[in-house]
Amino acid sequence: MELDRSPLARPFPELPHIDGVTLRVARAGYKTWERADLTFAELAEGTAVAGVFTKSACASSEVEMGREQIGQGRARALIVNAGNSNAFTGYRGREAVEQIVEQVAGALGCESEQVFVSSTGVIGVPLPKDKARSGVEAVLAAEPCGWEAAATAIGTTDTFTKGAHTSAMLGETRVELAGFIKGSGMIAPDMATMLGYIFTDAAVEPAFLQEMLSKANQASFSCITVDGDTSTSDTVLLFATGKAGNAPLAAWEDAGADAFYAALLQLCRELAQLVVRDGEGAQKFIEIAVTGAADDASARRIGLSIANSPLVKTAIAGGDANWGRVVMAVGKAGEPADRDRLSIGFGGTWAARDGQPLADYDEAPVAKHLEGQDIRIDVDLGIGDGRATVWTCDLTHGYISINADYRS
Amino acid sequence: MELDRSPLARPFPELPHIDGVTLRVARAGYKTWERADLTFAELAEGTAVAGVFTKSACASSEVEMGREQIGQGRARALIVNAGNSNAFTGYRGREAVEQIVEQVAGALGCESEQVFVSSTGVIGVPLPKDKARSGVEAVLAAEPCGWEAAATAIGTTDTFTKGAHTSAMLGETRVELAGFIKGSGMIAPDMATMLGYIFTDAAVEPAFLQEMLSKANQASFSCITVDGDTSTSDTVLLFATGKAGNAPLAAWEDAGADAFYAALLQLCRELAQLVVRDGEGAQKFIEIAVTGAADDASARRIGLSIANSPLVKTAIAGGDANWGRVVMAVGKAGEPADRDRLSIGFGGTWAARDGQPLADYDEAPVAKHLEGQDIRIDVDLGIGDGRATVWTCDLTHGYISINADYRS
Repeated sequence: MELDRSPLARPFPELPHIDGVTLRVARAGYKTWERADLTFAELAEGTAVAGVFTKSACASSEVEMGREQIGQGRARALIVNAGNSNAFTGYRGREAVEQIVEQVAGALGCESEQVFVSSTGVIGVPLPKDKARSGVEAVLAAEPCGWEAAATAIGTTDTFTKGAHTSAMLGETRVELAGFIKGSGMIAPDMATMLGYIFTDAAVEPAFLQEMLSKANQASFSCITVDGDTSTSDTVLLFATGKAGNAPLAAWEDAGADAFYAALLQLCRELAQLVVRDGEGAQKFIEIAVTGAADDASARRIGLSIANSPLVKTAIAGGDANWGRVVMAVGKAGEPADRDRLSIGFGGTWAARDGQPLADYDEAPVAKHLEGQDIRIDVDLGIGDGRATVWTCDLTHGYISINADYRS
Repeated sequence: MELDRSPLARPFPELPHIDGVTLRVARAGYKTWERADLTFAELAEGTAVAGVFTKSACASSEVEMGREQIGQGRARALIVNAGNSNAFTGYRGREAVEQIVEQVAGALGCESEQVFVSSTGVIGVPLPKDKARSGVEAVLAAEPCGWEAAATAIGTTDTFTKGAHTSAMLGETRVELAGFIKGSGMIAPDMATMLGYIFTDAAVEPAFLQEMLSKANQASFSCITVDGDTSTSDTVLLFATGKAGNAPLAAWEDAGADAFYAALLQLCRELAQLVVRDGEGAQKFIEIAVTGAADDASARRIGLSIANSPLVKTAIAGGDANWGRVVMAVGKAGEPADRDRLSIGFGGTWAARDGQPLADYDEAPVAKHLEGQDIRIDVDLGIGDGRATVWTCDLTHGYISINADYRS
């Protein structure tokens, strides 16, 4: 089945060179695709790494190994296989990942724990070792490629290639951050989305790099959902090569730490939103801003309850300002709420305040807003200072067609 | 929009007379429907009542009042309004319910706390007091009607009228149980489904009646889901008129208590399953049996995680034995699981055992099973003795059409 490009797609941007990162792609042939499906990022010695992984109890061997490896904080290589997630494949899946790690570590002359592997695609088929071996051989011998080629090679059901970049000034030193990501369905926050990779030339100590990524994740990848389904392979890795030459960041008090974190958070949010823009069947991008909740975590859970409600998502698909369904989703979230203080608005117009529909509610500007592609829902709980913003897409016939009408 | 009758519909059965229950319907005109939309059940003096209500934090005034009233344990009347849920309507909604209660209590000469009111339909429009007043007047004067007329009058988007009955022997005394229910969308367990009413002529002390209903609810209404969305009005009430003349049941040790509970549980399950059979857009009825979980509650949460997964539901709609999606849904449930002990089967055939696809897996019988209307998914966690069965339906284009293509 050939998927149409998402109407919410964004062009792939011009990404800056990140000193210490070399990208290559090759074709392992995991599927019948006539394109590269194996991506390799070679990282300079001393590169710091941080990662967040799916909390799934049925995670893939790749995720299991990544969780074990991330603690030592250094990375020399990243391998991404596309077309086969290698999840739920038992010891055979684990052996395939170990083979890749050994092969790459041998070629680079590095510790095997510094080689990170991700796989994405069908669940339940062991990654074929022979294809992996010849694919890794080919990618090690390949010419370096650009960001877009690497970002395209990690895709599966994605309808467009997703990347973003930003920069930050650490005192006098400018550092670059660039990343790419894939994901379209089976997207729900816990932690995140499918596979995302971020590279920076900044120098950051691994433990602090992990602290910043975990924090940024809470306000980006963990704030998106397409269908409430959580992948067995979700992974976001952040590599810092240190080639920019700044004084290494090790704590929030360090000069430049705030600037770097702000840039990282912006990049994480941009990448996360690109996944929502490629949500299966998506026709509309929805931002849900929750304020006045008991605390920030409560606000996020309420936001995700709304974002995961099929009745809210179908209402938006139909251009229906059905705030009653938003009330329902707030009510079912299991979080503190007071029906008689709850306010709900669309596109900047309040439809209901303090537990009642507004007497002078003018639906015209709301109807106009809902005709657009970028939808905003405001929910104020009126009971505290907690706030969060989450992002999702609408639920359309396209989602059903992609997931029911065709065999995967 | 005229909805087609669900392909999973069941005919309305012949229900027995329950001594002490008199049913009447009338037309209050809450919507433009040309049919009765107000249902009244008059209950004999001394009728015991038990109830379970939505846990929504944004529950309707009807639910709030029901929660307050249920503690005293006695009921003389039930009023159900269809076409307007009266939820999220502030003090005006509350006033409308209080008016109905006073009007009925005055006519029957009973305590107002013994009059229970439910409403179902659109959220955010205060129940019009004038229509309620004349509707109640009309229903008090109406001729008694049969079960099917009453069960039809409480429906909204339901495509068929739902009722069930059973009986039990309490020693030498035969007692009857009959019930009706409505619900199709916004169905998720917490506690249950929309509106359900069960009547019995058995004599049961209110506290014990409540204990049995709460327990049966955990294995019936709380084990179904259509779309994971929880209504603001969910209510199940159980009325026991005591007219059968058995020695009143007051504890599990009493003779007949087990028989009565078994009959009650069977009836609750039957009613709950009828709601799933009318799930919006449903083409297939799905039973998910979870075994080997850490405990029963964990098994139920895992079952509901599978039942609420749009990727699993669309796979079943497409006749796709996609057990990888079941693995995903187990993994995201947040419950104890061991990937390498997990087994998954469809219609009695195991597809994967102990964390791996079966080498000799024969998809033919599974494909045949998935062509049918009644689907069975077996999931064995392999880590404990916990078990639960949950029920849901598939997710089809019909659900999107009902909720997005037409304005509600």
